[in-house]
Amino acid sequence: MRILGIDPGLRRMGWGVIDVAGSRISHVANGVCEGRGEALAGRLLALFDQLSGVLAEQRPDCAAVEHTFVNKDAAGTLKLGQARAIALLVPARAGLEVAEYAPNQVKKVVVGVGHAAKDQVDHMVKLQFPGVKTAGPDATDALAIALCHAHNARFAGRLDAAIARAEAQ
Amino acid sequence: MRILGIDPGLRRMGWGVIDVAGSRISHVANGVCEGRGEALAGRLLALFDQLSGVLAEQRPDCAAVEHTFVNKDAAGTLKLGQARAIALLVPARAGLEVAEYAPNQVKKVVVGVGHAAKDQVDHMVKLQFPGVKTAGPDATDALAIALCHAHNARFAGRLDAAIARAEAQ
Repeated sequence: MRILGIDPGLRRMGWGVIDVAGSRISHVANGVCEGRGEALAGRLLALFDQLSGVLAEQRPDCAAVEHTFVNKDAAGTLKLGQARAIALLVPARAGLEVAEYAPNQVKKVVVGVGHAAKDQVDHMVKLQFPGVKTAGPDATDALAIALCHAHNARFAGRLDAAIARAEAQ
Repeated sequence: MRILGIDPGLRRMGWGVIDVAGSRISHVANGVCEGRGEALAGRLLALFDQLSGVLAEQRPDCAAVEHTFVNKDAAGTLKLGQARAIALLVPARAGLEVAEYAPNQVKKVVVGVGHAAKDQVDHMVKLQFPGVKTAGPDATDALAIALCHAHNARFAGRLDAAIARAEAQ
C-alpha cells in the first residue's frame, strides 16, 4: 500500500509518500508544492497543478491530510481552509480515499504522546527513515501524517482480521 | 463581456451569468452547485465538477467571487475558506481573471448603500432582471456579485478612457 501524506499550507504544502508492505514501512519520496504569486486564485491553481503532478508521478493508493481547525485569527483560518480544500480535492479527483488526522493524533502515533513538540516529530521521522533528506519541515510533517495513517490502517486491518477470526470460531 | 458571479458555500454555491454590451446588462443564466455527501473531500469534488460544468457551458470572459472573511466561529471560517478555494480555482483553471468583492462593496453598487439588508439586494436584482427566476438566494447573491463587477469594470473602463483623453490633450 502506497500512502500520500499532505500537510496543507497556502505558501508551502508539504507532501510525503511511503510504502507499507506487511510490517515494513519505507520512504518513497517527499517534497513541497509552492503557492507562487500574489493573486490567491493563481496560488491555488499552482498548488492544484503541482499536487496533481505528484499524484500522477507517485500513484499512491490512498491519502491522509492533517486536519488543523483552530488558528490564531479568522484570516489565518480562512487561508488554511483554502489550502486544505486543494489537499482534499486533488486526491478525491484521482478517486482516492482521503483520511484526516488532527495534529495530536499524528503526534500520538509518531512520538507516543499527543502534546509532543514539533522537533520530536521531526526526530522520530528521521529515525524511521535513516538517511532520508526531507525538503523541509512541511515535507517532514507530511511524512509523519503518512506514518500515522499507516499505523492506523494496520491497526484497523488487525481489528478486521481479529473480528473475522472471532466470527469464524 | 460575459461575467460569472459566484457566491461561495460548501453546501450550496450560487452562480449567476450576465452579459454586458455597452450600457445594456442582460441575464443569461443562474443556478446552484450542491456539495452533496457527508465526506468533505467528496463535497469539494462535487462542487469542483459542477462549477467546471457551468464554465464549460456558459463560457464567461471573467469571474467575480464574494470575499467574506469574517464568520461567527473558526469552524465556519474554515468551511468558507474551503468553498472559496473551489470558487477561485475553477475560473483560474479556465484561464479567467477572478475579481473579489467584499459583501458591502456588492451592496453599495447594487443597492447604493453598504449596509443594505439582504432582501434589498434581492429586490434590486429582480428589478434589474424583470421576469427572471433565480434558483434561490445563493443564485440571487451570485447575480448581485456579477452586477457589482459589471459596474466596476464599466467605471474602470471610463476612467481609462478619461486618462487617455487627458493625456492626448
